Amino acid sequence: MSTHRYERLADHLRERIRAGYYSAGERLPSVRALAEAHGVSLSTAQHAYHQLEDARLIRSRPRSGYFVCALRERPAFPPPSKMAQRPVAVSQWEQVREGTCVLPDTHMHNLGRGMPDIDTPTIKPLLRALSRAGRRHDLIGLNYDTLHGRPELREQIARLSVAHGCRLHPDEIVITTGCHEAISVAMRAVCEPGDIIAVDSPSFYGALQSINAYGMKALEIPTCARDGISLEALELALEQWPVRAIQITPTCNNPLGYTFSEKRKRALLALARRFDVAIIEDDVYGDLSWAFPRPPTIRSLDDEGRVLLCSSFSKTLAPGLRIGWIAPGRYRERALHMKYVGTGSTATHAQLAIAEFIREGYFDPHMRRMRQQYRHNLHAALDVIDAHFPTSVRVSQPEGGYMLWIECGAALDSLALNERLMAEDIRIAPGVMFSATGKYRHCLRLNYAVMNDAIRYALKRVGELIGEMEKAEAREAMTAG
Amino acid sequence: MSTHRYERLADHLRERIRAGYYSAGERLPSVRALAEAHGVSLSTAQHAYHQLEDARLIRSRPRSGYFVCALRERPAFPPPSKMAQRPVAVSQWEQVREGTCVLPDTHMHNLGRGMPDIDTPTIKPLLRALSRAGRRHDLIGLNYDTLHGRPELREQIARLSVAHGCRLHPDEIVITTGCHEAISVAMRAVCEPGDIIAVDSPSFYGALQSINAYGMKALEIPTCARDGISLEALELALEQWPVRAIQITPTCNNPLGYTFSEKRKRALLALARRFDVAIIEDDVYGDLSWAFPRPPTIRSLDDEGRVLLCSSFSKTLAPGLRIGWIAPGRYRERALHMKYVGTGSTATHAQLAIAEFIREGYFDPHMRRMRQQYRHNLHAALDVIDAHFPTSVRVSQPEGGYMLWIECGAALDSLALNERLMAEDIRIAPGVMFSATGKYRHCLRLNYAVMNDAIRYALKRVGELIGEMEKAEAREAMTAG
Ligand SMILES: Cc1ncc(COP(=O)(O)O)c(C=O)c1O
Ligand SMILES: Cc1ncc(COP(=O)(O)O)c(C=O)c1O
Repeated sequence: MSTHRYERLADHLRERIRAGYYSAGERLPSVRALAEAHGVSLSTAQHAYHQLEDARLIRSRPRSGYFVCALRERPAFPPPSKMAQRPVAVSQWEQVREGTCVLPDTHMHNLGRGMPDIDTPTIKPLLRALSRAGRRHDLIGLNYDTLHGRPELREQIARLSVAHGCRLHPDEIVITTGCHEAISVAMRAVCEPGDIIAVDSPSFYGALQSINAYGMKALEIPTCARDGISLEALELALEQWPVRAIQITPTCNNPLGYTFSEKRKRALLALARRFDVAIIEDDVYGDLSWAFPRPPTIRSLDDEGRVLLCSSFSKTLAPGLRIGWIAPGRYRERALHMKYVGTGSTATHAQLAIAEFIREGYFDPHMRRMRQQYRHNLHAALDVIDAHFPTSVRVSQPEGGYMLWIECGAALDSLALNERLMAEDIRIAPGVMFSATGKYRHCLRLNYAVMNDAIRYALKRVGELIGEMEKAEAREAMTAG
Repeated sequence: MSTHRYERLADHLRERIRAGYYSAGERLPSVRALAEAHGVSLSTAQHAYHQLEDARLIRSRPRSGYFVCALRERPAFPPPSKMAQRPVAVSQWEQVREGTCVLPDTHMHNLGRGMPDIDTPTIKPLLRALSRAGRRHDLIGLNYDTLHGRPELREQIARLSVAHGCRLHPDEIVITTGCHEAISVAMRAVCEPGDIIAVDSPSFYGALQSINAYGMKALEIPTCARDGISLEALELALEQWPVRAIQITPTCNNPLGYTFSEKRKRALLALARRFDVAIIEDDVYGDLSWAFPRPPTIRSLDDEGRVLLCSSFSKTLAPGLRIGWIAPGRYRERALHMKYVGTGSTATHAQLAIAEFIREGYFDPHMRRMRQQYRHNLHAALDVIDAHFPTSVRVSQPEGGYMLWIECGAALDSLALNERLMAEDIRIAPGVMFSATGKYRHCLRLNYAVMNDAIRYALKRVGELIGEMEKAEAREAMTAG
C-alpha cells in the first residue's frame, strides 16, 4: 500500500512510462514542473524520480534532467498450440507436498505460496469479530453447524455475489473448508473415477492433485497468457474426448493472471452447453481484479445451473480460517453429499466472524485497499524484474491478484533454481506443479502480495540466479557444441 | 454434573440398586440411618429418596419407610449371528442428510445428534484461548498452516496419546477437519473404489456414507451390544471376501456404547495381520470411557503401522471447531495426499487455541468433569426410561460416552416415530442411519449429554410414543389375525 505521496507519484509515472506516454530517450518534466503539476513538494517530486531511477526506469544526466531509459523489451508469450494432449493421470505430488509442508512462521521468504497480505489494518475488525464470536453467549461457535453452513454467512456471500453479476439465493450456497474443498466437492459431484476433466494449463495444482486422487483424468487445454484458455483447442478436445467437466479459473487466473473476457466466457458457456458438460468455475481471485466493476463470473451468465461456482475468503481475507463456498447449481444434492462425506459440517466460529465482518461494512474498504496495494506491488516487482532478471524471460501481465508467471529459457530447471534459492531461505513455486505432466519446468510463479526490502532482495536474487544458471547453461552448450 | 449433594447420594443408591446390592422388595435404611452413614443432613437424605421415588426405583409405605421396587427387567440384546452379509453399496443418505441439516440454535430438543455438552465452566478457558489466538501479534492464526498441522497441537496430542497406551511422535500425527475427515482420509489412503471395508454394525453413519461416496463397499459384521464385533463372523468374512480394511469404533462405541476388551482388541489385530488388512480405528469417544486408566487403543498394540487411528476434539471439547487428527501409521504419505486433495491444510486459529488449552492444563480436569456428568446423566436417562418406556424395549449399557441405543419391537418404525416426535420439536436418530442397508429400523439412538427437565420431558415423550405405537401395532395385528 502506498503510504507515501512520493510512492504514489512514482506509481503514476511508472504506469505512464510502461504505457508509452513517455517513450524511451524522452526527457521528463523537471522536478519543479512535476511538483507543480501534481501539487506536491519539490522533495516529494525528487523522491519519486529517485525511486524510478533505482528501478532503472529513468536515469539522470547531470545538468539536463531525467530521461526515460530504453524499456527492456521482453519477449511476449508465444500463442498456445491448438491441440490438447491426451487425458492423463496427474503426477507432480512430490513438488506440491514439498511446497505445502512449510511452516509459515519461519524466516523463509516464501514467494511460492498463494498467501495474501494479512498484516494490514483493514483486517483488524476481523480479529475483533473472531474474538467476539468465541465469547458469544449462545456458544453457537462451538456447536456443529448445519451441513450447508451458517445462514448469516450465506446471506452475506449472496449479497456480495451481485458484484460479479449473480443474484445467488443464500440457499444456493454451501459453505466449505476453503475453495480447495469446494473444488474437490464439485469434481466428485459431477464426475466418477475414470472421467475426464478439461483444465486450463498451466493451472492451480490443488485442482490437478484432486483430479489425480479421485482417479479422474486431466485433459490440459492450451492456454494463452493474455487471453486464457484456447476455445478452439477446447472445442477440438470436446469433439474428441468424452469430457465430463471443464475446470477453469477465468478471472485473475492463477498462475497466469489474465481475465477471460465476457465474450469469451459466453462462448465457453455455449460450448459447455453444446457438449453438455459441467463447468467448475474457480473464482477465488475474482474480487482482486483491477477492473471496476469487477468482471462477471461465468456462473452469472448461466441460467441452467450448469456452472459450479467455487470460491473462498482465502485470497481476500485470511486463508488460515479455511472458509470457502460452492454454489453448485443443479448439482446441489450430490455436492451436499460429497461435502458431508469429506468433512461433515464446516467450522462454525470462523463463519460467524466473517459474516459479522462483512455485515458491518468492513469487506469493501478492505478490498479496495488490497487491490490498490497489490497493483502498486506489481509495479514494484516489475521494477526489480526489469533491473535484475535476464531480458530473455517472459513475464505475465496480471489483471488482478498478486501472482506473476515467469517463463525462462527452455533449458532452465526451476526445481534446481528452487533448490539453490532455498539455501538462501528463499522459495518460489516451480512451474512443474502447474501441469498434470510436469510441463513448465522452465517456468515459475512469484507472489508479490507483500512488498518490502527483504522481498525486493529475494526477488532480485531469483533474477540473478536465473541469469547465472542461464549463462552456465549457455557455456555448457558452447563447450559441448 | 451433580452439583447437589442429594443428587450424588441418589446416584450412589441408584447404582447399588441396579447392581443388586439392594434387591427388589427390600427395605432401605431409614432417612436418619442414611444421613448418618453418609454424613449428610436429614433433608439431603430425604431429597435423595424423593428423587429415586420420582424415578420409580423405590416407593414409600406410610410409617414403614422406603422399599426397592421390582426392577423392571428388560430383555437382553440377542447374541449376533455368526454370518456377515454380502458387501453392499451403502444407501440411507436421505436420513443422514435430514439429520445434519438442522440448525443447532433452534428450540428443537435434538436427542439425535452426537453433541457433547459445551455449556460447562471447564470449557471457558478454551473461549479465552480462541480469543487470544485471534489477537496474536504474528497473525499465525490467519495464515495457511502446513499440510500436517501446527506443531504445538501435534505435540499436545502426542502427549495425550500416552493415556491410551500410545507413544505417538508429533510427526506421526496429521491434523484434520474433525474425525470425519480423518476417517475419510484413512479410507482413501487404504482403499480404491470397488474395495471392500468390513464394519461393525450398527456403526457411525458418517463412515458408512464415506464408503458409499468413494465407491467402496461395506461388509457389515454382526456386533454384540455388550462385547462388540463378532470375531468369529469377522474371521469368516475375511476368509470369504477380499477385504481391504476393517473400520471400527472399539472404545465407547457409537451407537452401542460397549468397549471391546483388550484381549479382543489383540485378537482383532492378529486377524488383521493374518489376512493383511488395515484397521481404521475410530477413537473419537475413547477419552469418555468410565474406566480408569482409559482402555488402550488398538493402535497402541500395533507395531507394524497397520492401524490408522482417527479421532477429534468434537466429543471432548467442541465439535464446531472441526479439529481432529489421524495417526496413519505406514499409510502416512497416501494419507497426506488425501488430506491435501480434500481440503488443503486445516484451520489454524482453532488449532492454536486447543493447543494452548491443553498445554495450560485445562484438558484433564475438563474431561474428569465431563465423564462424571455423562455417567450421572446416564442414570438420570435410565430413570426416565424405566419409568416411561415399554418394558419390552432393549437398552444398551454404555461404558462411556453419552449415547443410548434402544431396540424396540420388530414392528416399530423409528422413522415414523421421529416424524411424530418432530411435531413436538423433539428429534431422535433413527436406527436405519446406522446400517448400510437400512437395518435397525426398529432401533433408535438417544443423546444424554445434557440433562434437564426439558430433556427429561423429551425422553419421556419418546418412551410414551413408542408405547402408543407398539399398542396400535398390536391392536392392528389382533384385528388382522
Ligand atoms: C486458483 C486457486 N483455487 C483455489 C485455491 C485454494 O483456496 P483455499 O485456500 O480457499 O482452499 C487456491 C489457493 O492456492 C488457488 O490459487
Ligand atoms: C463414531 C464417530 N466417529 C466420528 C465422528 C465425527 O466426528 P467429527 O465431528 O470430529 O468429524 C462422530 C460424530 O458424530 C462419531 O460419532
